[in-house]
Amino acid sequence: MTQAQLTAEIRRKESFLCIGLDTDLEKIPEFLRASKDPLFAFNKAIIDASHDLCVAYKPNTAFYEAYGSEGWRALERTIAYLNDSYPDHFTIADAKRGDIGNTSGRYARAFFETMSFDSVTVAPYMGRDSVEPFLAFDNKFVILLALTSNAGAFDFQTLSTPDEALYLQVLRKTREYAHADRLMYVVGATKASFLKEIREIVPDQFLLIPGVGAQGGSLEEVCTYGLNSQIGLLVNSSRGIIYASDGADFAEAAREKAKALQLQMSRVLRESKN
Amino acid sequence: MTQAQLTAEIRRKESFLCIGLDTDLEKIPEFLRASKDPLFAFNKAIIDASHDLCVAYKPNTAFYEAYGSEGWRALERTIAYLNDSYPDHFTIADAKRGDIGNTSGRYARAFFETMSFDSVTVAPYMGRDSVEPFLAFDNKFVILLALTSNAGAFDFQTLSTPDEALYLQVLRKTREYAHADRLMYVVGATKASFLKEIREIVPDQFLLIPGVGAQGGSLEEVCTYGLNSQIGLLVNSSRGIIYASDGADFAEAAREKAKALQLQMSRVLRESKN
Repeated sequence: MTQAQLTAEIRRKESFLCIGLDTDLEKIPEFLRASKDPLFAFNKAIIDASHDLCVAYKPNTAFYEAYGSEGWRALERTIAYLNDSYPDHFTIADAKRGDIGNTSGRYARAFFETMSFDSVTVAPYMGRDSVEPFLAFDNKFVILLALTSNAGAFDFQTLSTPDEALYLQVLRKTREYAHADRLMYVVGATKASFLKEIREIVPDQFLLIPGVGAQGGSLEEVCTYGLNSQIGLLVNSSRGIIYASDGADFAEAAREKAKALQLQMSRVLRESKN
Repeated sequence: MTQAQLTAEIRRKESFLCIGLDTDLEKIPEFLRASKDPLFAFNKAIIDASHDLCVAYKPNTAFYEAYGSEGWRALERTIAYLNDSYPDHFTIADAKRGDIGNTSGRYARAFFETMSFDSVTVAPYMGRDSVEPFLAFDNKFVILLALTSNAGAFDFQTLSTPDEALYLQVLRKTREYAHADRLMYVVGATKASFLKEIREIVPDQFLLIPGVGAQGGSLEEVCTYGLNSQIGLLVNSSRGIIYASDGADFAEAAREKAKALQLQMSRVLRESKN
């Protein structure tokens, strides 16, 4: 999927919602736990109930790895189902990988070839040769951690360096990488006031914004500073949508939560004439 | 395993060698590829041939994930085999994970409970609450990336911050975390000249040193600056050992390479009276 295709999907659906599939056996409805592959059964129901309201799905690999190879198989079934049934959705493996070049190439293969995700989140700490193997894959995106949504973001990401804070250096250096047109960045919704400065460095890139909902970020504030002419935002909600109910109505309840966010997004897009 | 137990094992074997199981179907002997679980068959043969010469094994998760859930199953079989057959070895999941607290907790569960590794490598970019969930597990270690062995280490890790370079700040801040006695750090052998300054900040911790061998680091230089009274070093070699031969003699050839490193280490320990 190209950036232009993603923008077109956002305009068509009047939504820049990404739904995070942080699927946890302890939180899904009890009746599902008896099924053969409860993680996948849950994901399938959520996806079927919400696909027209969002443009992206983002499974976080930690939740699948916690269940070992069976969890990994549920992740494989989830991405296969998305690609077969809803090929117009942008898919994100929220994996936060990064290693020396030789090894990052193996991670890229895991997420782009063995499974066919459109993008993967990558941690920048190990620098250029840890990121570029992911960018070597055609039509795939790297979503680099810039300023994350958690409290620990202020431990290292915001440290001053000779020119500017570390996360701004990450943006400035990485936007020069080969195929930087296929780079996106993670910026937490809880750090929305930082978006103005971020947009000065990366005006054109898409930003993946977690932290609306359970973590307390504001959609309005994110949009005020984050929207660009291509819209340029994917706003993620995970727990706030997928665990809206733990009863038989869980998928419908998730749909309602997704619908509420989509309506807010639709209003924002109309008001900003985007 | 405690730090004291690890040091005792190092003294007993006169070896602080860690063998990296970066197992790649394209590099293992052709005759093994026909077996039911070639990744595990290769690992088992390497482990059986080398266990008396090393104190630690370090599978890198990227190499297993590249083969999807089947690769993940091979990783599970490898750690189970190590824990059953060689319980005195220190095991490292080289995974370089790190996410918001809630999610790091799931990764910790994946590597410390679902599989029973002694330690996991973690990237520090997301700060304190991304690291501490791993430290909440008793008798397990976090090995935090400090100064990595690749060229990209100079992109961000060595940037100046108001007090010192970023990687030194990472060491200084993280050594204050709860259970910091169960923290170790990754420092690349290719950056051995930085070890003096690193040892001033973290004199007591173990350092995991990759980059001897294929990446060109020097064991002598690492020992000159890195050894402490508890020895405090785990020196890793992956490709240089496990791919010494791609013939029927691959395990014996790996043993020879491991033996050569162990002999160097034995000399170093005797000379330093450690």
